[in-house]
Amino acid sequence: MPNITFQPSGKAVDAPSGTELLEATREAQIEIEAPCGGKGTCGKCIARIISGKVDSDSLGVLSPAAVSRGYVLACQTKILDEPVSVEISEQIGREGGQFIDETDDTCLVRCDLFPKEWQPTPLSSKIVLEVPQPQLADGHSDLDRLTRALHQKVEKKDIHYPLPIIPQIAETLRREGENGKVTVTLAETPGRFQVIRIEPGDRIARHFGLAVDIGTTTVAVQLVHLPSAAVLATQTAYNDQVECGLDVISRINYARKPQRLEELRQRVLKTVNHLVNQLCKGNEVDNKDIGGAVVAGNTTMIHLLLGLPPEYIRLEPYTPTILEIPPLTAGEIEIEIHPQAIVYISPAVGSYVGGDITAGLLCTGIARETADVGLFIDIGTNGEIVIGNREFLMTCACSAGPAFEGGGIEQGMRAAVGAIEKVHIHPQTGMPTYQTIGKVKPRGICGTGMISLIANLFQTGWLDPAGKLNRTKKTPAVRVNGRQAYYIIVSQEESGTGEPIMVSEIDIENVIRAKAAIYSAASLMMEQVGLKFGDLANIYIAGGFGRFLDIEKAVTIGLLPDLPREKYRYIGNSSLMGAYMVLVSRESRQRQMELARRMTYIELSTDPAYMNQYTGALFLPHTDINLFPSVYL
Amino acid sequence: MPNITFQPSGKAVDAPSGTELLEATREAQIEIEAPCGGKGTCGKCIARIISGKVDSDSLGVLSPAAVSRGYVLACQTKILDEPVSVEISEQIGREGGQFIDETDDTCLVRCDLFPKEWQPTPLSSKIVLEVPQPQLADGHSDLDRLTRALHQKVEKKDIHYPLPIIPQIAETLRREGENGKVTVTLAETPGRFQVIRIEPGDRIARHFGLAVDIGTTTVAVQLVHLPSAAVLATQTAYNDQVECGLDVISRINYARKPQRLEELRQRVLKTVNHLVNQLCKGNEVDNKDIGGAVVAGNTTMIHLLLGLPPEYIRLEPYTPTILEIPPLTAGEIEIEIHPQAIVYISPAVGSYVGGDITAGLLCTGIARETADVGLFIDIGTNGEIVIGNREFLMTCACSAGPAFEGGGIEQGMRAAVGAIEKVHIHPQTGMPTYQTIGKVKPRGICGTGMISLIANLFQTGWLDPAGKLNRTKKTPAVRVNGRQAYYIIVSQEESGTGEPIMVSEIDIENVIRAKAAIYSAASLMMEQVGLKFGDLANIYIAGGFGRFLDIEKAVTIGLLPDLPREKYRYIGNSSLMGAYMVLVSRESRQRQMELARRMTYIELSTDPAYMNQYTGALFLPHTDINLFPSVYL
Repeated sequence: MPNITFQPSGKAVDAPSGTELLEATREAQIEIEAPCGGKGTCGKCIARIISGKVDSDSLGVLSPAAVSRGYVLACQTKILDEPVSVEISEQIGREGGQFIDETDDTCLVRCDLFPKEWQPTPLSSKIVLEVPQPQLADGHSDLDRLTRALHQKVEKKDIHYPLPIIPQIAETLRREGENGKVTVTLAETPGRFQVIRIEPGDRIARHFGLAVDIGTTTVAVQLVHLPSAAVLATQTAYNDQVECGLDVISRINYARKPQRLEELRQRVLKTVNHLVNQLCKGNEVDNKDIGGAVVAGNTTMIHLLLGLPPEYIRLEPYTPTILEIPPLTAGEIEIEIHPQAIVYISPAVGSYVGGDITAGLLCTGIARETADVGLFIDIGTNGEIVIGNREFLMTCACSAGPAFEGGGIEQGMRAAVGAIEKVHIHPQTGMPTYQTIGKVKPRGICGTGMISLIANLFQTGWLDPAGKLNRTKKTPAVRVNGRQAYYIIVSQEESGTGEPIMVSEIDIENVIRAKAAIYSAASLMMEQVGLKFGDLANIYIAGGFGRFLDIEKAVTIGLLPDLPREKYRYIGNSSLMGAYMVLVSRESRQRQMELARRMTYIELSTDPAYMNQYTGALFLPHTDINLFPSVYL
Repeated sequence: MPNITFQPSGKAVDAPSGTELLEATREAQIEIEAPCGGKGTCGKCIARIISGKVDSDSLGVLSPAAVSRGYVLACQTKILDEPVSVEISEQIGREGGQFIDETDDTCLVRCDLFPKEWQPTPLSSKIVLEVPQPQLADGHSDLDRLTRALHQKVEKKDIHYPLPIIPQIAETLRREGENGKVTVTLAETPGRFQVIRIEPGDRIARHFGLAVDIGTTTVAVQLVHLPSAAVLATQTAYNDQVECGLDVISRINYARKPQRLEELRQRVLKTVNHLVNQLCKGNEVDNKDIGGAVVAGNTTMIHLLLGLPPEYIRLEPYTPTILEIPPLTAGEIEIEIHPQAIVYISPAVGSYVGGDITAGLLCTGIARETADVGLFIDIGTNGEIVIGNREFLMTCACSAGPAFEGGGIEQGMRAAVGAIEKVHIHPQTGMPTYQTIGKVKPRGICGTGMISLIANLFQTGWLDPAGKLNRTKKTPAVRVNGRQAYYIIVSQEESGTGEPIMVSEIDIENVIRAKAAIYSAASLMMEQVGLKFGDLANIYIAGGFGRFLDIEKAVTIGLLPDLPREKYRYIGNSSLMGAYMVLVSRESRQRQMELARRMTYIELSTDPAYMNQYTGALFLPHTDINLFPSVYL
């Protein structure tokens, strides 16, 4: 009697106990890719157990969240002595050798940039102790004995016990009796250790951390298992503050009244806590087991998160209240993890170069032991640029707007499952073919999709250098409505939203403005340090606009300078990754503080040359076509 | 036309503008003492301005609270060119050269013990700064500039800014414009300075601190002007926890349920905050201007204040959760002063020798650079004893009960205005004459009153060694009611409460038990260190039971050993005074921490000899009359 049924095909086979699920699919003549040859490394042979038990070891390649929802690697799963129903479906988001979970945005992080050989030294660590039971007349309090036991394991620095910890000590030390174990969560803060939690027994494995990137448009939160430094899952969402203004200046204006400052603080907290709670739920992690967090964000976002009036960031001489924020507790900030968990906030350089950039810089080779000059461009709602090497580090910022994150684009969306990330244009018919993240029905278009679309429309002659769609050649994809023209990418039938997905000339103009702001800032920056783009050895591009940035297309639209493509490296959400690196490594925190202090901030807004540069860049790729020889090859 | 009218006499005189009020009283033939000759130092020529303006400078001798209610020193007050009505009355509590304000218990503190030449180095200090305005491109945040300015005035230690301070910095630094001043309140905590407050302008004079003594029965709070180290006023009240048990053991038992632990915490907070608010109101001090506090109390009281389960204090091996409490903020503890103010809690030695004793020890010469052995006895609801010199310090504790603080005595009261503090007995008639604090109508009897009464009844033969009133000799002062006899001190007509004030044999028994507990503990302690009472060079007696302790009477009842009287020194509420000393001097805090670590705690309750000693002491003065030769002279 067949004991394995495959869905949606309904095919069934009988396989003895111990058979590999991958083998069983072959027996049932179901095609499933396994390019690694069944070693459990490529992550392609994904299946979902609908009912019945199997013996599976898919963790590591699949996230705990996916595993908890029944996903397995067919090659790492053995049939047991009971009937089982298995789903093998294209509907499971799966591509490029990676499993894509709809509720997990880990795909947006370039995990390949994480150090391969990693000795985790997390900022917050758990230590298991045996604290001797009290003795008559030894004169020691519970806290004395605990401190003594701790000092046998850690450096003899002052150990600080916050008040809320102290009431639990007496019970916890006695719970497990003689030779009983207790687990202490300890964080390093300047000059001392801080006790975060004390639990009875050995709880060393239940220790998690958060890396948080707070962008003006997008917030990303990553859940990390601290003892192993493993990323369990990442989730992103729009910053709920978007309702109060699309860029930092409008947020600062909005925050002028104290109750509105508090509203903005509550809005970003709502976004962060929503993501935290989703991550905890999806990964079966108790919020209280999250014992540390690292937050990176631009200076305004951090001011708003902490309820600091951002007014003077906007007014000359652009002075923020604070750049290096002391370690705070999650309870103080109101992030819903363990209230005593220490939250380390990435140090900022100036009003417009924040902790997102000092975090991002950790993911680049700039400022390492090299004389080669590197350029780092972080493309978000603000664009920030860093140029330097081991000897100097200069930085500036410009306002790009949220277009690359799907903001200010009618049918724009974050780079999440369902986002169009590539659009090909048929040169003759003008008709599109597209690709979505997760290979599911399209729901909108993300930043990389916009770049791909505009570059291809431009190169096929369907868009002119000023960003206007071709109205003379006829194609069903271009619809003209009065003075406005639209490009239709997805018909109503194919769309995942029930509405056609289209891009207007206004949307295109927003992208052109954004790319012009960034290109001209980079260009002016080069001028100011007396270098040319050609002098650069490496260019690192960061941004939350997609999983992969097609450098070719970015050069085509004039977002990036026309340099040999091999000099480019796309590093994704480097702010989030830098936060991760600080979370799991004390040395990274140290390095980040040093970098922040080394960087010299240049104010572009007071430089009259900037407006000239910007105006010149408001074309595809640029008014000066000599700057982009490869585009006109 | 007479321009000065004196009340209650109604006498009136005419005096030219500029006349001294003291001179005017003489002109009106009103007698008013001025033993210092009108130098404004003795504080005897007190008057109250009922209406009209005068030119007076009485602060320093009179408390600001008294001055604000119209009290002046007649010798320091000049008549102006307008009519004035002045009260010169015996009703103004005034005695022994000291003004006694009904709402101020400063009289209970032996101010003569405060150092005469004092260089205040308070734990919390205000610093006035000129912080330069921000400059374009200097790369400094507001906080950077503030820290830089601070480091020009204080040691280059880490300066910690708690989160609630940071949002105010931007506005405060800009409020007074170029060269504007800001005042920063700074406290020293281990390894760093902590910013408590930042205010625009020069606010250096408005800086106050609290010394707090939390006793099992009585709570005392003292308001101190920190820049001058001047005590503005002191107030005491019964600890509201008294409702939940009279001694620490019954409080610990009460606290077993978590909601009751919280109830006890709230009760003591209510008492402390009530006193704080009264002091602030009476002295026109804003609670937020109180930027630091020092709290002394026994180990159980401190556990309850902080919400720490006290259970294990009661159970062998008697281990408290914590002895040395890290500096906490007032907001954390919920004391209603500036929420960021640091509260320093006196370090404890053991479960039954707390921070009240390490504070009290600061007021003695024990442990100073001397080989002379000294004894320190703090008589409260618990009695604590310290013996030692520069080489050793031993300490023990016993449970005395609240009798000496007026607790467990039917008509007992705290040593406040209206308390009978001395009772003379006519040897023949058995009739009493008494004295009250503040020379007002009696409202009850305080600890020193009880000692005086019992000693005098005993010495005149109206009380036997077992504490029974003489029923054979007849006196209207002794009333027998069944098996109980009462001694009536105040008749209904003379009483300030409308009820006669009397003491029962049960009340007397409570005092005898209390004195027996203390004497026997001291006696056993001497045995344990291999010394005799006669080896002592100094004996310091502390306690909240009155302003002055008549050592003679205390020896008569057998509370204190029969030693040459000149070896004794009564130091009053030494816990409160020690807290004051720590509040105004960093060196005292340092010394207190060292003392706490040096002290060796002896557990009496496990020593079988204690019960023998105690039983022997349950007589007046003792079963072994050879121990008290002077009583039987």
